[in-house]
Amino acid sequence: MAEFSDLDGFRAVLAEMPTIDAAAHAGAVERNTQLTKPPAALGRLEDVAQWYAGWRGDARPKIHAPQIIVFAANHGVAAQGVSAFPPEVTEQMVLNFQHGGAAINQLARAAGAHLDVHALELDRPTMDFTQGPAMSEVDVVAALAAGWDAVRLDADLLVVGEMGIGNTTSAAALAAALIGGDAADWTGRGTGVDNAGLANKIRVVAEGLALHQGQGDGVETLRRLGGRELAAMAGAIARARSLRIPVILDGFICTAAAACLEYTMKTALDHCIAGHLSAEVAHGRMLQALDKEPLLELGLRLGEASGGALAISIVKAALECHSGMATFAEAGVSGA
Amino acid sequence: MAEFSDLDGFRAVLAEMPTIDAAAHAGAVERNTQLTKPPAALGRLEDVAQWYAGWRGDARPKIHAPQIIVFAANHGVAAQGVSAFPPEVTEQMVLNFQHGGAAINQLARAAGAHLDVHALELDRPTMDFTQGPAMSEVDVVAALAAGWDAVRLDADLLVVGEMGIGNTTSAAALAAALIGGDAADWTGRGTGVDNAGLANKIRVVAEGLALHQGQGDGVETLRRLGGRELAAMAGAIARARSLRIPVILDGFICTAAAACLEYTMKTALDHCIAGHLSAEVAHGRMLQALDKEPLLELGLRLGEASGGALAISIVKAALECHSGMATFAEAGVSGA
Repeated sequence: MAEFSDLDGFRAVLAEMPTIDAAAHAGAVERNTQLTKPPAALGRLEDVAQWYAGWRGDARPKIHAPQIIVFAANHGVAAQGVSAFPPEVTEQMVLNFQHGGAAINQLARAAGAHLDVHALELDRPTMDFTQGPAMSEVDVVAALAAGWDAVRLDADLLVVGEMGIGNTTSAAALAAALIGGDAADWTGRGTGVDNAGLANKIRVVAEGLALHQGQGDGVETLRRLGGRELAAMAGAIARARSLRIPVILDGFICTAAAACLEYTMKTALDHCIAGHLSAEVAHGRMLQALDKEPLLELGLRLGEASGGALAISIVKAALECHSGMATFAEAGVSGA
Repeated sequence: MAEFSDLDGFRAVLAEMPTIDAAAHAGAVERNTQLTKPPAALGRLEDVAQWYAGWRGDARPKIHAPQIIVFAANHGVAAQGVSAFPPEVTEQMVLNFQHGGAAINQLARAAGAHLDVHALELDRPTMDFTQGPAMSEVDVVAALAAGWDAVRLDADLLVVGEMGIGNTTSAAALAAALIGGDAADWTGRGTGVDNAGLANKIRVVAEGLALHQGQGDGVETLRRLGGRELAAMAGAIARARSLRIPVILDGFICTAAAACLEYTMKTALDHCIAGHLSAEVAHGRMLQALDKEPLLELGLRLGEASGGALAISIVKAALECHSGMATFAEAGVSGA
């Protein structure tokens, strides 16, 4: 059960998070110098393996139990016509997840990951944030706790993702409120709105910003402009940190949820890497603000944890090399 | 057994290669429009799935039997001090591959791929190409045939890679001879030579170019400036085409071998995609000349098929989505 019952309690949890295990990280760095390859020849895989080893507290770990969690919720702001799809698609897609027909089902199987799907009060959309805060404190804390409790204790890698018609609008508003800039800087086409739809979406984000920007820290901004699935992703990312489970961030919406943690407690995302760069235009700007370099850039803009799930195979492969390769001494190979 | 006994025979084989199955490709394009996701939301994965389906002649295929082949050989030009490692490392690394200790062993296992290693006359290095052609016609044809015969008939995806101390020098000379430009444009640090080593390497490539540039087509250039492992990779890529097995290109050296096919017979690489962009500086320029966009960019510069092997998981995932997802009609999801 979650170790907080209000936002101040959640802030206190964030303030006392574990840090990377320096000895395990140093051990992994040292081991890497001995592996049968030219120095740095595995590029980014070497950094990823050392980062993972440090967070797991083990200089030579492998990945056996990755978990993917998809959180779904509905948004009051969807009534303003911000999406190319009608709101009932959220629930229809949850059924598709449960029946194994969505992209994330295929990607989870391909990655050897356990997939959990949590639908969060789909019959009770958040409030329209152009009218007031999206959630009460009770609602946002319940969603944070739903995310916190969804993380499996035996997971050794976590990807979180989402489904929620209207949620790129929420994510754009969060990014603008936290990082700065205009509504137009952060608002993209989401699932594919046309030019008129994009202009309407920018208007909605701007109205939300006018009402809520500068009204508090990351988690207060999450309450005002977020949604239940965004809060649940934030809660799960925080829980993973408390359990020393490294996290792969998914795309635009997942990253916006993560940013709410970073803008509450600097360093809150040190256990996270960016799985991919989304085609949603402002995702790259958001990753830059968080100082995260994406592993993949394949033009995805689906959500559902899809980009993060694809990156699991890369992170797994990095650890297979790091922990499975022979050293120069073991293999009898001459060094440079 | 290979269907050619001299270079003209190999040219004839290249001239009669199968083309993509237009009906299967069109069927895959049509299926993609019906899957439960916004249009184009899986980005590059959609293109990859359709390309693969077209080459397999099946609008809804999956990948069950990827094969990775690593070819190893020694280069006479290594005596000119072009590598940071001594020539005996080629054989030491072959033993490491056979004992399961190299990066490619871990990456093949992680990708669920069958790994084959072929050492090609390691005790008989090619000639130093600054003194004359690296190989006789008999030698280059034997190496092409070794590659041709190494492809498993039941493979449904192929990655080829290499091990050969000195072979970035050979690859740089091939690229310059085929594509144009100076030795310095194509010569990088390989496994990690210092500035003096790089200057020496550029001199060696320039001497090879002076002797061999403009002396024939792609396969003749391969004979003059290549090596046995490069010719074997070219032979395997050609064999995959004849069997309709799609190919993922690895890094700088693999791509140089592939370029010898393209500069013999335009369209010879239509069944190939680029697995990754290597950190070897000229790889990006070579991919541009071949009009190939890499799937991954992770700073690898190892060879051994490592970057191509990493990309297997991405291509597999693309086909899992394409062939495994539900359609809007099947899932009862409302369209846009």
